[in-house]
Amino acid sequence: MSGNSFGTLYCVTSFGESHGPAYGGVVDGCPPGLALDAADLQKELDRRKPGSSRHVTQRRETDTVEILSGLFEGRTTGTPIGFLIRNEDARSKDYAQIARKFRPGHADYTYWQKYGVRDPRGGGRASARETVVRVAAGAIARKWLTERYGVLVRGYLAQLGPHRIPFADWDAVGANAFFAPNAGRVAALEAFMDELRASGDSCGARVNVMAHKVPVGWGEPVYGRLDADIAAAMMSINAVKGVEIGAGFAAVGQKGSEHGDEMTPQGFLTNNNGGVLGGISTGQDVTVSIALKPTSSIRLPRRTLDVDGNATTVETTGRHDPCVGIRATPIAEAMLACVLMDHALRHRAQCGDVQPPTHPV
Amino acid sequence: MSGNSFGTLYCVTSFGESHGPAYGGVVDGCPPGLALDAADLQKELDRRKPGSSRHVTQRRETDTVEILSGLFEGRTTGTPIGFLIRNEDARSKDYAQIARKFRPGHADYTYWQKYGVRDPRGGGRASARETVVRVAAGAIARKWLTERYGVLVRGYLAQLGPHRIPFADWDAVGANAFFAPNAGRVAALEAFMDELRASGDSCGARVNVMAHKVPVGWGEPVYGRLDADIAAAMMSINAVKGVEIGAGFAAVGQKGSEHGDEMTPQGFLTNNNGGVLGGISTGQDVTVSIALKPTSSIRLPRRTLDVDGNATTVETTGRHDPCVGIRATPIAEAMLACVLMDHALRHRAQCGDVQPPTHPV
Amino acid sequence: MSGNSFGTLYCVTSFGESHGPAYGGVVDGCPPGLALDAADLQKELDRRKPGSSRHVTQRRETDTVEILSGLFEGRTTGTPIGFLIRNEDARSKDYAQIARKFRPGHADYTYWQKYGVRDPRGGGRASARETVVRVAAGAIARKWLTERYGVLVRGYLAQLGPHRIPFADWDAVGANAFFAPNAGRVAALEAFMDELRASGDSCGARVNVMAHKVPVGWGEPVYGRLDADIAAAMMSINAVKGVEIGAGFAAVGQKGSEHGDEMTPQGFLTNNNGGVLGGISTGQDVTVSIALKPTSSIRLPRRTLDVDGNATTVETTGRHDPCVGIRATPIAEAMLACVLMDHALRHRAQCGDVQPPTHPV
Amino acid sequence: MSGNSFGTLYCVTSFGESHGPAYGGVVDGCPPGLALDAADLQKELDRRKPGSSRHVTQRRETDTVEILSGLFEGRTTGTPIGFLIRNEDARSKDYAQIARKFRPGHADYTYWQKYGVRDPRGGGRASARETVVRVAAGAIARKWLTERYGVLVRGYLAQLGPHRIPFADWDAVGANAFFAPNAGRVAALEAFMDELRASGDSCGARVNVMAHKVPVGWGEPVYGRLDADIAAAMMSINAVKGVEIGAGFAAVGQKGSEHGDEMTPQGFLTNNNGGVLGGISTGQDVTVSIALKPTSSIRLPRRTLDVDGNATTVETTGRHDPCVGIRATPIAEAMLACVLMDHALRHRAQCGDVQPPTHPV
Repeated sequence: MSGNSFGTLYCVTSFGESHGPAYGGVVDGCPPGLALDAADLQKELDRRKPGSSRHVTQRRETDTVEILSGLFEGRTTGTPIGFLIRNEDARSKDYAQIARKFRPGHADYTYWQKYGVRDPRGGGRASARETVVRVAAGAIARKWLTERYGVLVRGYLAQLGPHRIPFADWDAVGANAFFAPNAGRVAALEAFMDELRASGDSCGARVNVMAHKVPVGWGEPVYGRLDADIAAAMMSINAVKGVEIGAGFAAVGQKGSEHGDEMTPQGFLTNNNGGVLGGISTGQDVTVSIALKPTSSIRLPRRTLDVDGNATTVETTGRHDPCVGIRATPIAEAMLACVLMDHALRHRAQCGDVQPPTHPV
Repeated sequence: MSGNSFGTLYCVTSFGESHGPAYGGVVDGCPPGLALDAADLQKELDRRKPGSSRHVTQRRETDTVEILSGLFEGRTTGTPIGFLIRNEDARSKDYAQIARKFRPGHADYTYWQKYGVRDPRGGGRASARETVVRVAAGAIARKWLTERYGVLVRGYLAQLGPHRIPFADWDAVGANAFFAPNAGRVAALEAFMDELRASGDSCGARVNVMAHKVPVGWGEPVYGRLDADIAAAMMSINAVKGVEIGAGFAAVGQKGSEHGDEMTPQGFLTNNNGGVLGGISTGQDVTVSIALKPTSSIRLPRRTLDVDGNATTVETTGRHDPCVGIRATPIAEAMLACVLMDHALRHRAQCGDVQPPTHPV
Repeated sequence: MSGNSFGTLYCVTSFGESHGPAYGGVVDGCPPGLALDAADLQKELDRRKPGSSRHVTQRRETDTVEILSGLFEGRTTGTPIGFLIRNEDARSKDYAQIARKFRPGHADYTYWQKYGVRDPRGGGRASARETVVRVAAGAIARKWLTERYGVLVRGYLAQLGPHRIPFADWDAVGANAFFAPNAGRVAALEAFMDELRASGDSCGARVNVMAHKVPVGWGEPVYGRLDADIAAAMMSINAVKGVEIGAGFAAVGQKGSEHGDEMTPQGFLTNNNGGVLGGISTGQDVTVSIALKPTSSIRLPRRTLDVDGNATTVETTGRHDPCVGIRATPIAEAMLACVLMDHALRHRAQCGDVQPPTHPV
Repeated sequence: MSGNSFGTLYCVTSFGESHGPAYGGVVDGCPPGLALDAADLQKELDRRKPGSSRHVTQRRETDTVEILSGLFEGRTTGTPIGFLIRNEDARSKDYAQIARKFRPGHADYTYWQKYGVRDPRGGGRASARETVVRVAAGAIARKWLTERYGVLVRGYLAQLGPHRIPFADWDAVGANAFFAPNAGRVAALEAFMDELRASGDSCGARVNVMAHKVPVGWGEPVYGRLDADIAAAMMSINAVKGVEIGAGFAAVGQKGSEHGDEMTPQGFLTNNNGGVLGGISTGQDVTVSIALKPTSSIRLPRRTLDVDGNATTVETTGRHDPCVGIRATPIAEAMLACVLMDHALRHRAQCGDVQPPTHPV
């Protein structure tokens, strides 16, 4: 498995750089017969799109997706789905001054050391713009999951810098630029972001995603656990530094009598395990929380090195999200959907003949 | 890639159940010429071994490992290293009463639903005893990493239930039953565990692991990131519910000016990123922290279902660790070592000819 | 995927050397609920066993298999099936004289150059004795294929050195030491082998294997074709130098009007394609033919080099099959079964919901 | 690994259909620093291009390749190389009449049964036009192999229908439309093809490919053998029904004293093994021969079924190669190059530190 592919049966391969001609992806393994067109992908891409509010990067990209293969008469054929998203607003001049300096917190230095060469334009392959591929691939997965199993994947911004955002309702999420699940907090978030942007600094965020109606039984022992694959998928998103399933780090302070989710004929009484036990879905909601670090590209001057190893300072003046977490919700949803779809296919491959002995709770 | 294998080039395959004849593993891809014998594996297995203090399960296993292939005259030959660890103290009668009930927090229910059949003896494949395979595979990896690159992987218990354990010194870690890095706290931990055990309950834990002297450049964009593979490896350990790299969830509340690790000719000034930027190692310590949930098997009665779907209660009276986190340190170290070794090999495959343009900081 | 594993969903991992303690394997991905015990594997291993006639190696191995995991109460549980076959009659002294010489046609030289070290005892990892693992893994696959789909995998010796063996009937195959499908030719084969053995030389062979009742639809475009995976599986068997599907090399001289298998409501009229079109099974018999080279280890003196690069000669006096093809039939059957099972699982993963629009012919 | 990807470390992913908007591919794992531009790919694509003589399909495609990622300032960066080849001359009307009939020898029926849907335009995903992706990916591999190791991959048409073409010289190969290595036979081949085309029939072919200067040591035991991966790669090419390495099927009739390649300080005396022993390259030429079946799409009427299962006949009048083998040489070369490159990388991953104890012969 190459580093730019993921998934065993629902397999996503990605290519592209921030200031190259295009990003693109290949989704292999999608079942045939799924009604699909570019609009299905576009809808999700539009949720992630830059330039949609003053709180995110002002790079103007339509993120228009073109599907190049895998469809016939509006349905998937079972052959690989190739798609392309052209870069339109790549201003490489913005990056001339940083080509010779390593931005603290960015991948400049590691790419340079690993490959002996790097594409400094907009972060090259390390740019978070690569997530367009994930969102497009996730759009296909979530459509299939919903049609086939009724699975619904969704998420929200749970914390923006120091501001915890209590969950109020799902309707709020789509109605503000932050994916915040609480209309009453949006004004405070906007004020915070305006101040942050003015200061030239950036902040971190926490995003929660979950999947409803996941059937019991998806996931495999012992390395191919559903939660292990979710952890990898989430940690592979730019800027993510932590992943929790269910109670996550709160489980450290719990007693077993508190954490272990009791079962009744009416279902589980709690969901500390986040819908996964022994690496296999329980039928409860699969709940995931991720930590995103603050954007590395900030206007404030930072100490760093140049490519010759000399001490210098760097200020990043290009167009950057002051909080990458703001646009991360659809990305994390997409990754969760891709992992779930992969495991749905893996499960029916091995266990397609199983008649579950007990009715699921 | 099957669910019981992990790693692309340093590939570990595992088999075995808690009360079957044996656990075993196959390590494929180890470079030839490494001096190795069973004692190298045994040393690490002994660190993980049950029955070594009153605070862990009283199951008596010597965990004696037999190497079956891959060695000639005391050195690895490059062919797969098969090894076996026989189960010796499997008392299946202990489990008779739970064969028809699902223990809350345990994988009983999900295995049952997924496979339509389950081995109830000691948790079967879901038992944490499977980690002997990881520890053995990790022992090979850490030996090679140390000899080839000077990499040192180590860890400690950072929190036991509510007790945070401030890091004092590495020497303490090996000198107590908890892998606690602070001799002054051991008495308190013992008292807490004695009380916990008496209460019939269990608790969670936090374990920190790290790798020193990892060269810059290991890891791949964008899904094959070093940190993504670490996240999967850690989350695949039994009971793990959360993974952090570097600052982890603390990054949510940080500003970019605080989080982004500044660089000087003398090195990085901080290590919020935990030794990984853009998915590639920086040359700093790779730092990982994991959350382990409380043991699911407790003596206290819990509401649950039987295999016919009827409401009942279950009390688990077998031999169990009241805190699985206590023995998790060598396991997490092993997983980190395996991932690092895999990426060491992957890196030199693709970038073996690269002359890094800048001297690493 | 490591070099000692094969299969995507029915995944076989192998370890062991000719004169090490044991061979072993891990089968991951087997569906749960299959009735299975060691006798199922033993039956196939006994067909491959050395020492069963004067025409094969006189090494005495019972090839007794022990299953170590993956079963509960006589059925597969869906977890990995580990198994072990101890080496019993390893006489390493036989090989002392060749430890410093490279046998022409053998892997001695390439292992030595690749790894810088080699296990010279009995050919080490390059010994054809490794095929015990394949036969054991194949036994599981063929049992599942038969029970689930009625698939029958079988084969025979089609040519021994210069002697072509016309197919007469399947009953003959099990009734002679050669797997020859023609009782009338056995005496001639025995005479040929006696003469060959006396001469100190060896010969090649052709083996044909096929699978009956394979459903239409197994296989994937474009690299994951069923025939591509069969080709790899067959070429991975020791001594195989050629693989044909259907008409094979005879297709070179055919016209399209002759080769293309016409279809009628009663079925295909011919099977030049060997049951695979576009990489996907047609529902006809899958037919495969392989060429096995003569055994490399012969008594006749051959020019070669020693490990210091000096010219020398070598005569191989250990216990060797004078024709490795004689015992190859169960091995080739096993590999075909494993590939088919892998594709059966892959097919239902992606296409489990497809309602074929046409009744298969 | 999905069905439309191949290679472990030099990983090629392909998408596209004959009459869709485009074919495309992603090459992941290419080492950084390789000088590369579209012309390197175009040169090989032009060798495979249709419409270049009257003996091949008259479809007019420029096969212009666009590289979309993975390059910076004319060199590979180590990130995935995405490329696109637009379809320009897709005349879907040609295929209207066959949309409801299965062409004998073609994948129509198997795709239809497998997926429940198929793209009938030009054969959809099953079209041999997909080989543009292989040729493009192979162009990168051969450039790297040549620059890094001096490896030269080349091939020729060895037989056209009944006409064996004795190898005369390499210069002839590029000087005729057949890749025939013998200028004196070209007139006869042309006459044969003119007659074949007039008859409405098609013919098979044999193509030989080889790689010179492959270092000793590439390949892995036991399933990851170099020759096993070559066999899969070749059998995955459209219309291939047989693969031979070295002596191939001729080995069946050889004695061990004839087949086993003797060694002297000056090198091997013969190359019956085709440059691979025990799955590992010997340092000799890697020699491969493949059988290609006759084109399935012919003008002559054939008995077949329609999609409702009724008996009918089909005549294929679109633009087709009367012998797919004529253009197969650059395709087979490309596949060989990709496999070799994959193993070059795999070898140095595991054995990068080995100091070969003996100077290669």
